[in-house]
Amino acid sequence: MTNASPAVVLLSGGLDSATALACCVRDGFAPHALSFDYGQRHREELEAARRVAQAGGVVRHEVVDLNLSAFGGSALLSGDGSADLIVPKDRGEAAMAAEIPITYVPARNTVFLSVALGWAEVLGARDIYVGVNAVDYSGYPDCRPEFLRAFETLANLATKAGVEAGAEGEGRFSVHAPLIDLTKAEIIALGLSLNVDYGLTHSCYDPVQGDACGRCDSCRLRLAGFEAAGASDPVRYADR
Amino acid sequence: MTNASPAVVLLSGGLDSATALACCVRDGFAPHALSFDYGQRHREELEAARRVAQAGGVVRHEVVDLNLSAFGGSALLSGDGSADLIVPKDRGEAAMAAEIPITYVPARNTVFLSVALGWAEVLGARDIYVGVNAVDYSGYPDCRPEFLRAFETLANLATKAGVEAGAEGEGRFSVHAPLIDLTKAEIIALGLSLNVDYGLTHSCYDPVQGDACGRCDSCRLRLAGFEAAGASDPVRYADR
Repeated sequence: MTNASPAVVLLSGGLDSATALACCVRDGFAPHALSFDYGQRHREELEAARRVAQAGGVVRHEVVDLNLSAFGGSALLSGDGSADLIVPKDRGEAAMAAEIPITYVPARNTVFLSVALGWAEVLGARDIYVGVNAVDYSGYPDCRPEFLRAFETLANLATKAGVEAGAEGEGRFSVHAPLIDLTKAEIIALGLSLNVDYGLTHSCYDPVQGDACGRCDSCRLRLAGFEAAGASDPVRYADR
Repeated sequence: MTNASPAVVLLSGGLDSATALACCVRDGFAPHALSFDYGQRHREELEAARRVAQAGGVVRHEVVDLNLSAFGGSALLSGDGSADLIVPKDRGEAAMAAEIPITYVPARNTVFLSVALGWAEVLGARDIYVGVNAVDYSGYPDCRPEFLRAFETLANLATKAGVEAGAEGEGRFSVHAPLIDLTKAEIIALGLSLNVDYGLTHSCYDPVQGDACGRCDSCRLRLAGFEAAGASDPVRYADR
């Protein structure tokens, strides 16, 4: 056991969160990984989160059950038969950037950060790492810097620890988003420099028998990122 | 079916949230009640929430599983054997008001409001009702007006709907806390005027074979409130 301060890392099992975990370790924290079983259609994500947590040397990995699928509202939640909520395929960059994607899960990052905050307070942690990115995911409102700053403000008003720390004091909660300004290629280059094994990660919105589809927005961004980083993606693709 | 706008009401099954539900109905909304199964020790609360929802004419009542007890950290979560996390009994008003209670659940209202926000966005609702109160619960940081305002700010940055509404536009999320400035006696008087059946509610932190203990902070505040309101509490107490 080390004397490193604890930090909570939101770990989806995707490329970005695996890189955020590596940044947390790089920054000298003892990482506590938090994943959610929230009715996501791509269950492979949770298996990936477990692999990434183990390889990333986390102190503890918690998977919290939180079934949001009863609410519906997103193509990423299973059990919703709405015809207009099919994962889009083969979209160009302009189409991906132009709108808030239908794969947006209502208030997801707000919920996940809130639970992370609760765990952080119990652990005595004041640092939360999240792999959100404002470049490739500009369409998601809860991936923007102003959202994260508003969450930090809330966190320090919401908690006993934040209130005791006061307005400027030591011990205030910080949300770290080390990838927020990076392109996908820069994220991949950063992760490779920190020895992230991207073969353990899962990004696809619509896997085909366990393999990535290669055609959804997430796969396309990932593949373009590896190409731009001059690296090859170690995960297996169905359509390639 | 009416054409009333939907609103989400956080419903614990306690006296305050039952009154908040009645306020939501009074204000002309179609109430959608949201409760959480979060590993609370007092399971009677959820049964009370179901009774209150049914009597209160909600359009839909969702109970979301969210097991925070793995994190520990509060006397209200079961399965934590820490000796210093016993529900305190027979405390005077000064002791109750002087500190953040150990019955504080880390980030609970933040988490609950976040999930409510997600459901509201799916429903097309822009209004969330919550029975928080800053008078009797001054020790809870997430029951204060500044916390609720910070949450509203966050909600309008976090969501597609909030972003589309813009900084001042129609359609922004509002968190209604109709009880925030009321004493317990005033809450009870308000609820009685709105025909709330308080016999359906449950407030006790530490029930004795289904009956309220009459001695925990929550029971003591409730009993004092009924007395000050000149009314009698219809629930059954073990110690009386």
